[in-house]
Amino acid sequence: MKAEILTIGDELLRGEIIDSNKAFLAERLLRIDVETRFQSSVGDDPADMEDALRRAARRADVVLVSGGLGPTRDDLTIDVLAKTFDRKLVLHAPSLAAIRDFFARLGREMAEVNAKQAWLPDGAEVLPNPIGTAPGCLVLAGEVPIFCLPGVPRELERMMDEQVLPRLEARQAGRTVVRARILRTFGMGESNLEEALSDIAQDGAVTLGFRTTFPDNLLRPLARAATVADAEARLDAVCTAIRERLGALVYAEGDEPLEAVAGRLLRERGATLAVAESCTGGLLAERITRVAGASSYFLGGVVAYANTAKQALLGVPADLIGRHGSVSEPVACAMAEGARERFGADFALATTGISGPGGGSAEKPTGTVCIALARADGTHAGRFVFPLDRERHRSLTVQIGLDWVRRTLLGAPLEAPTLMRRPA
Amino acid sequence: MKAEILTIGDELLRGEIIDSNKAFLAERLLRIDVETRFQSSVGDDPADMEDALRRAARRADVVLVSGGLGPTRDDLTIDVLAKTFDRKLVLHAPSLAAIRDFFARLGREMAEVNAKQAWLPDGAEVLPNPIGTAPGCLVLAGEVPIFCLPGVPRELERMMDEQVLPRLEARQAGRTVVRARILRTFGMGESNLEEALSDIAQDGAVTLGFRTTFPDNLLRPLARAATVADAEARLDAVCTAIRERLGALVYAEGDEPLEAVAGRLLRERGATLAVAESCTGGLLAERITRVAGASSYFLGGVVAYANTAKQALLGVPADLIGRHGSVSEPVACAMAEGARERFGADFALATTGISGPGGGSAEKPTGTVCIALARADGTHAGRFVFPLDRERHRSLTVQIGLDWVRRTLLGAPLEAPTLMRRPA
Repeated sequence: MKAEILTIGDELLRGEIIDSNKAFLAERLLRIDVETRFQSSVGDDPADMEDALRRAARRADVVLVSGGLGPTRDDLTIDVLAKTFDRKLVLHAPSLAAIRDFFARLGREMAEVNAKQAWLPDGAEVLPNPIGTAPGCLVLAGEVPIFCLPGVPRELERMMDEQVLPRLEARQAGRTVVRARILRTFGMGESNLEEALSDIAQDGAVTLGFRTTFPDNLLRPLARAATVADAEARLDAVCTAIRERLGALVYAEGDEPLEAVAGRLLRERGATLAVAESCTGGLLAERITRVAGASSYFLGGVVAYANTAKQALLGVPADLIGRHGSVSEPVACAMAEGARERFGADFALATTGISGPGGGSAEKPTGTVCIALARADGTHAGRFVFPLDRERHRSLTVQIGLDWVRRTLLGAPLEAPTLMRRPA
Repeated sequence: MKAEILTIGDELLRGEIIDSNKAFLAERLLRIDVETRFQSSVGDDPADMEDALRRAARRADVVLVSGGLGPTRDDLTIDVLAKTFDRKLVLHAPSLAAIRDFFARLGREMAEVNAKQAWLPDGAEVLPNPIGTAPGCLVLAGEVPIFCLPGVPRELERMMDEQVLPRLEARQAGRTVVRARILRTFGMGESNLEEALSDIAQDGAVTLGFRTTFPDNLLRPLARAATVADAEARLDAVCTAIRERLGALVYAEGDEPLEAVAGRLLRERGATLAVAESCTGGLLAERITRVAGASSYFLGGVVAYANTAKQALLGVPADLIGRHGSVSEPVACAMAEGARERFGADFALATTGISGPGGGSAEKPTGTVCIALARADGTHAGRFVFPLDRERHRSLTVQIGLDWVRRTLLGAPLEAPTLMRRPA
């Protein structure tokens, strides 16, 4: 099954927003073995839209359209869709009621212009939108299903998962069932991973895909079987084999980020965390507090950018900085221990480094970073050199720190994995 | 002039990366009045690529292609381009030398596979790549220029500005010259801005566009004239009129983010800054330290997520928290003053609020936030309610704080502008 994704809106063609819907839809389609063959975008122009819809229905087996479902004059997708495939627009009473309800829940009256969103092509299957006003719809162009979804990412994402994917899977009924999972790993390069898993999923029942989203590497086992139960059983077996082989390198399944995993473990164990940051400049604390509810285990942090701040707020001895320099394992340890003591936390992470651009020396090149984790039984520290740009340098440093917390709570070793000793 | 943007790569169609190149290219084209009419993406499939190239050359006046210029087997753009428009590939000796030089500068030998990147279509104009190995090229399909650029955003962005835009402008020679600028504003809603500027740029020589990128509103005056000097003079006049009308609401021109503007002012005045964050959880410090060289004015910060941390690290009196609650103007002031004193900074910003989801009460609903700025002459504080999701709540809070620093350094009033008193 080959898909085309068509996104609609002048704002895309003016470059005002980066279109993330296409990547989301393509990734989700791949999970049920539907390959995206074409992506296109046109503005709010009826002729261009009609042309794009016809081409998509001709060359693809399924078409996903996003955008242009709003209530204003510019929102033409449903009109053009109906015209292109010779449908009339009919009022869908349940959708009108849902839109009125939506506004009632906000304590507002529905503007008359919103009634337009309840007019849908005759014969279309309506896809309810539980968190917005625009319902989606499914229209068949001959054999080809055309799914229309709103452009608002939150709404599109939910409707893709709840409305589109089950229907596409049902259309594949009788065909082989396909199921995929994502295992998230951190700490080993992609080629080493491939090598480590070379004998896994070799019987043809499951194929194993690899993908990098810096600084993580994702594994994507995909199973084909006659039934869902069979496909899931095959995935279970392969995921178990991968986890046995890789141990703590696998940190999560699906979309869960490392800060959420570390946070969950801290909460489960009733443990608390504090941070002391120099080169990461607040990013470590920001990542931790992105997780709603982080206040139950995260006490806080110090961003000690200036050396005087390292001394005054973390109690790092001036002569330690004088002897070793602020980018050194002893100073990272002192920062972590200072934060642990001052916040009264069970664990404290510290970072100090040269994220660049510039600032390096022969002895400590740009990209040098020292990380420390203070625990009740002592402080663990490591020194690394990552020749990366400023943004990725900070991001990798944060990921290592969060991973050390996770490994500590799992009782796994903190040894610096392959990735970290080499230029990435 | 109508443009088509064509991006190439299996990774796009698998949804592995979000394609930001399209938005970048479209925005840049618009600055010289070239409208993007179509955007498409295909995978590394020669037939799909050829089809997309032919269609683009037929329906657009200029085509920008990105991706597929690498050295590996998957990188087919140049091959397919040559075949589609009946060109031979010829070795471009200066490009081969440039690629060898590129590796030599890294202290490495060029792999033979990279030599492929110096083979370009006969008659193509070569577009040098100063920061990567893949040169770009310009091929004419009849009258239609087809520009091929690498997919690496950094390289593409630089080559767009240095190679593509000047050539497109030259092709427009004889036509009207077009120049546009971006003025960045923060603190007034889009409709209020439109109203405030309703009498500006009404003579037809300059058109004024509006655009929102949360939490900022951007103004985009665009001038058409017979010469560059004329267009620039018209823009100068309109920008001056806008700045006179809006005063400190305009914080920058072009791409400069607010943290860079505030940082520049701090550096110019030899002043220093510290922060104390609760609800923003490190984001404020992270934004400030995203700017390379921030260490010359940013001393550091405390992320005081727990109340005990507010007391221990910032000296906020326990009874102040008891009386007013941690989300209150008195506590925000005490946090800012504590940070200012402990870091020995000229200015200190503090944030404390309920970013949600949940955590609110009748008196202090979710979305409440208090912000304070401590200065030598006293501490300024404000309390706001922003019914936004967690991420945007934190982002808006940070922007207000940075704007207060900027306004203080400019001697502008800190009054809370319209946007901030209302639900956004």
